[in-house]
Amino acid sequence: MADDADSQARAPGYRTARMEAFSDGVFAIAITLLVLEIAVPAGSEDDLWGALVDQWPSYLAYLVSFATIGAVWFAHTVITEHLDHATSILIRLNLLLLLVVSFLPFPTRLLAEYVEKTDAERVAATVYGINLLLVSALLSVLWRFAVHDHLVSADLADEDVETLRKRLTPGVAGYVALIVLGLFWPVVAVVGYLAIAVYILVPFRAIRNRSADA
Amino acid sequence: MADDADSQARAPGYRTARMEAFSDGVFAIAITLLVLEIAVPAGSEDDLWGALVDQWPSYLAYLVSFATIGAVWFAHTVITEHLDHATSILIRLNLLLLLVVSFLPFPTRLLAEYVEKTDAERVAATVYGINLLLVSALLSVLWRFAVHDHLVSADLADEDVETLRKRLTPGVAGYVALIVLGLFWPVVAVVGYLAIAVYILVPFRAIRNRSADA
Amino acid sequence: MADDADSQARAPGYRTARMEAFSDGVFAIAITLLVLEIAVPAGSEDDLWGALVDQWPSYLAYLVSFATIGAVWFAHTVITEHLDHATSILIRLNLLLLLVVSFLPFPTRLLAEYVEKTDAERVAATVYGINLLLVSALLSVLWRFAVHDHLVSADLADEDVETLRKRLTPGVAGYVALIVLGLFWPVVAVVGYLAIAVYILVPFRAIRNRSADA
Amino acid sequence: MADDADSQARAPGYRTARMEAFSDGVFAIAITLLVLEIAVPAGSEDDLWGALVDQWPSYLAYLVSFATIGAVWFAHTVITEHLDHATSILIRLNLLLLLVVSFLPFPTRLLAEYVEKTDAERVAATVYGINLLLVSALLSVLWRFAVHDHLVSADLADEDVETLRKRLTPGVAGYVALIVLGLFWPVVAVVGYLAIAVYILVPFRAIRNRSADA
Repeated sequence: MADDADSQARAPGYRTARMEAFSDGVFAIAITLLVLEIAVPAGSEDDLWGALVDQWPSYLAYLVSFATIGAVWFAHTVITEHLDHATSILIRLNLLLLLVVSFLPFPTRLLAEYVEKTDAERVAATVYGINLLLVSALLSVLWRFAVHDHLVSADLADEDVETLRKRLTPGVAGYVALIVLGLFWPVVAVVGYLAIAVYILVPFRAIRNRSADA
Repeated sequence: MADDADSQARAPGYRTARMEAFSDGVFAIAITLLVLEIAVPAGSEDDLWGALVDQWPSYLAYLVSFATIGAVWFAHTVITEHLDHATSILIRLNLLLLLVVSFLPFPTRLLAEYVEKTDAERVAATVYGINLLLVSALLSVLWRFAVHDHLVSADLADEDVETLRKRLTPGVAGYVALIVLGLFWPVVAVVGYLAIAVYILVPFRAIRNRSADA
Repeated sequence: MADDADSQARAPGYRTARMEAFSDGVFAIAITLLVLEIAVPAGSEDDLWGALVDQWPSYLAYLVSFATIGAVWFAHTVITEHLDHATSILIRLNLLLLLVVSFLPFPTRLLAEYVEKTDAERVAATVYGINLLLVSALLSVLWRFAVHDHLVSADLADEDVETLRKRLTPGVAGYVALIVLGLFWPVVAVVGYLAIAVYILVPFRAIRNRSADA
Repeated sequence: MADDADSQARAPGYRTARMEAFSDGVFAIAITLLVLEIAVPAGSEDDLWGALVDQWPSYLAYLVSFATIGAVWFAHTVITEHLDHATSILIRLNLLLLLVVSFLPFPTRLLAEYVEKTDAERVAATVYGINLLLVSALLSVLWRFAVHDHLVSADLADEDVETLRKRLTPGVAGYVALIVLGLFWPVVAVVGYLAIAVYILVPFRAIRNRSADA
């Protein structure tokens, strides 16, 4: 956060400390606000257990959104881990990413409300999928921009860059496919969104394994 | 956050670390809370898409408030980037700025609720504009105070000071003009508020370009 | 946050970094959540301005709570500024302080709801005052404990310790007096609470002045 | 946060700075959101005091959840205090822990709503207990994984490892016992949950005492 590399990088650009702190704040708040979308069933004194089970779409939507924001935060961490310094354009791209991340609680609520309601379900799943697609696409753009503009540290092995790119790009393609699929089977698409989040969370194990061997 | 400059500055004033952390927290929360103001349309199972399109004022208000808080956070970052240390008065000015920033979700909700409702629309747009004006004015005061009180680092080029002042002052004037305009065409004023936020976000590119050449 | 003093202090106790980060988070969230307590007047299309003016108690409660949390955060900053390291007991005292700080949005809502409603107004003002008293008392205890347990840096001038103690103790006494007063004139008590918050915010100017002369 | 140990550890794993910042954010938000679950009694102008006393389950649930999240945050601090660096798996385990921590406001609301309502009370207390059990179990897993994978600093005394393990494991067992007990006496179980949180908060005094003697 205040190591030598950053101090030296201060002249050509911005320190990454506040961009990281602000991003961590937005990610943490967005991920924690999700729980507010789950309503306590009212007047269900006779069968609370049944009422709780009935609102399974709320839990599913919570889980998918939590996993997605968690995965994006993780990928964001990997990106800034390799950032020497930030530039004005990178900070603005990051603000765009945060815009779509912090919007996610809205389609999450929408999905929880309208799952299992035929037509409306498709609309909700589509809006949700588009939001996830934008998050994923902007994360990919952020990473490509950082690599292209030589903002990543010189000590970054090509292998890591490859791993990141290999995982983020099919993620974007996956969202497009699932949005189309969601027009016919919305719930299947939502489960697919969860799978992509888990997939993005997993790849970095490769980096760890390599490190563990070293 | 804990570099040599700060450590040496500890005697005459306060470290800027906690002021930055607290400000980042408030900015991050205010910007993320905005999404809670967007209501999920109730009982719109037949035409959810239409119901979502109908509440466009909510999305517009969300976008303007997000862009404004993002722009203010960005400008705040540039200011603290150049701060050697904080003083008691600066910290209190900063608290005032955070007061009006964290109030913004209220007029945002007000605007989303009353746009397209003739008389009430003007009141909502005016209250919103005054809130934005106060944010912008206090940001400008904070910057001028820091420059005037010699709290900015010695290594700050005059050019950067100029760029900042050139952009923040017309921003304040722009808000005054738009508040008056909003008495007649409220929606036009709101679009104008978005334009100002984007305008404040853009100028720092100049700083980057200069840095890139160096 | 990671300067030499902290690193050396690591053996006997805890680093203060995470205690500060967590406290900043709670303070920032509590202060930003306050705005959610202000309701948008519903169905006031004919006279929105009048409806907004009518809910002045909400704004007053918002202002008092914001100023109080701001003042407490500021005092907390001064305390941790002088902290060499944290101990297990200090961290638990700090958790107690955060408990009463993060509870404040509830009596704030209560006050905004029941001001100008005779009997209920007194109850609301009393609950609010007791919450503020607890915040202030725990802040004072935290400071005295840190001084007593020799957790403050050796480079802390006695003058600063005095200034802090001189301001925090009458603050506690002031809250007791205002709670009693509030049983008869609740609104006067609330204005008094605002005065105390401003009073706690002001004293540190003395520290600055001394520093500025040095 | 940026000391030498971390810098050297950068090659084999991740810095712990952002994991700590993100975790602190989630803990701070979850603990502060709890107050939103306490409803202001509506239309109780005649007997506000009575109405406030009547909703004691809300305060109890608030207190238990606050103490639990506070205890978990404290234990998390102790763990990361000893962490040299983070690995990909540790970060994912940490995300799982944050998932169940940030879910806690939901069963808290459930409990506050349905305490004193016979059958529903048992369901609410059971759901609440299971959530607490998962939090405690994942915290224990996180600690064991860090110890097992040699991620803790070499300068960590075995005594500290022992103290932590001794307290976290019976905590898990305690939750299981209380969940069963809660099927018969739900309120007793809730008071027991408070006791466990206080118990987890206390043990680290031993570490302090040892340190104070040194």
